[in-house]
Amino acid sequence: MDQVPWRLVKSLFNKKEREASGLTVAEGPPSVMGALSTYARMEMVIVSQELARSDKWDGFREALAKHPAPGKVYTVDSSLYERMSGTKTPQGILCVLRFPFSYHRPPKPSPWERRLIVAGVDIQDPGNVGTLIRTAAAAGASEVMFLGDSTDPFSPKCIRASAGTIFGQNIVVDGDPVEAVSKLVRSGVRVLATVPSGGVYPWEANLADDCCVLLGNEGRGLRPEIVENLHEGLTIPMPGGTESLNVAAASAMILYEAIRQRMETLLS
Amino acid sequence: MDQVPWRLVKSLFNKKEREASGLTVAEGPPSVMGALSTYARMEMVIVSQELARSDKWDGFREALAKHPAPGKVYTVDSSLYERMSGTKTPQGILCVLRFPFSYHRPPKPSPWERRLIVAGVDIQDPGNVGTLIRTAAAAGASEVMFLGDSTDPFSPKCIRASAGTIFGQNIVVDGDPVEAVSKLVRSGVRVLATVPSGGVYPWEANLADDCCVLLGNEGRGLRPEIVENLHEGLTIPMPGGTESLNVAAASAMILYEAIRQRMETLLS
Repeated sequence: MDQVPWRLVKSLFNKKEREASGLTVAEGPPSVMGALSTYARMEMVIVSQELARSDKWDGFREALAKHPAPGKVYTVDSSLYERMSGTKTPQGILCVLRFPFSYHRPPKPSPWERRLIVAGVDIQDPGNVGTLIRTAAAAGASEVMFLGDSTDPFSPKCIRASAGTIFGQNIVVDGDPVEAVSKLVRSGVRVLATVPSGGVYPWEANLADDCCVLLGNEGRGLRPEIVENLHEGLTIPMPGGTESLNVAAASAMILYEAIRQRMETLLS
Repeated sequence: MDQVPWRLVKSLFNKKEREASGLTVAEGPPSVMGALSTYARMEMVIVSQELARSDKWDGFREALAKHPAPGKVYTVDSSLYERMSGTKTPQGILCVLRFPFSYHRPPKPSPWERRLIVAGVDIQDPGNVGTLIRTAAAAGASEVMFLGDSTDPFSPKCIRASAGTIFGQNIVVDGDPVEAVSKLVRSGVRVLATVPSGGVYPWEANLADDCCVLLGNEGRGLRPEIVENLHEGLTIPMPGGTESLNVAAASAMILYEAIRQRMETLLS
């Protein structure tokens, strides 16, 4: 049996190692299935004996057979699998993917005629980034952007929190949020800043036309230089009188409002 | 200097130890401030030298002075603080609290005339539980319930993810979700089950009157025996065609819709 490259897998939980190798890890059944079904560039799949012997394996075997180049499949015992896993509750399957994610299948087309873009600026927590991607995917967003000092959306933790939906999305990463926002404005997209006070309520804003909603850092919110240059602010009411919302929860509320307005527009 | 009880603090990250000692840990500035400002029963505060020497300490000193019995304050060096911390990015302050949380101040009254209850059933992830509490607090929920096999909402991770809002909320824990739901129905509350398909859209449901929204387990959703006994189901549309939403994101969407309906009712 070939040596399982477990040291390589472990190293990919570190951003520098991902950048040096051009590889990342997708862990857990939804993430691996998401990568396989979008034909993401695959280096290898590593599965625990336990999962490989269970009914769950059938779906993966089918998806592997369809993938044009799934790479090598390693079956390992549970203790070795756990040594590679980045989670406390390992679910027995991971794959190693190669950047950039050039898909044989293009990302899912958005169901909306008008662009629906959500952009996180300086979002630090991988769980928040992954959940934001998952919610945006459910909402049929046309693009999901991570601007400024946001954490790497292609880290194993973000991929995992996205429940595999990242592979079907248009993900844009740009270190310069001011320039990225200017570009959107010039292209005719209405850009709305989510701010703690002073904006209109989401149901008062027009989220049915081409628009991009910006959400800021977990602690500090959006950078002032971004808010200053925008005409529109969105404020989520907090009648309970607390100070703030989790950023993934805030994005879920705004994306829900966009869905509601767009479905009502379609039905009317 | 007294010996800092760091072994005790570390032990409280384990549920059995919390139950045996009747204590838990609130970690990070928002959680500690939340506990202090609601006069939660406090055993001790542990702060890193770094934080104690910074401007941030002023707010805590004031809150400690107002608390009727804040317990002992230990100042420790960063390496000892990090040994106690349950997080990868320690923020330099935690406190040990005594169960049950008998407050000198009652929980915040809900801003709504009609009850708004959110209930998680079999919710496993502490981050989801804490975020759900935080969102419910922002929405002014009258009660937040955790039913069935839900994770302990008073664990350090849940308290932390709630950003300290747990201390201002009516939290109800009940291992028997069927009985808990029956009790709500008998008291005249409309109970709505969040289901992946077949329910009405949230904007079609009446969330302005007394109501309770149920959300199920991250993987399996709500138990069939609960859904069967309810007349109403809520389904969040997912026009992007993905399979599911994160449970905290789903609760944020529904609570947003409740806020929207209730604010429109107030204004009309």
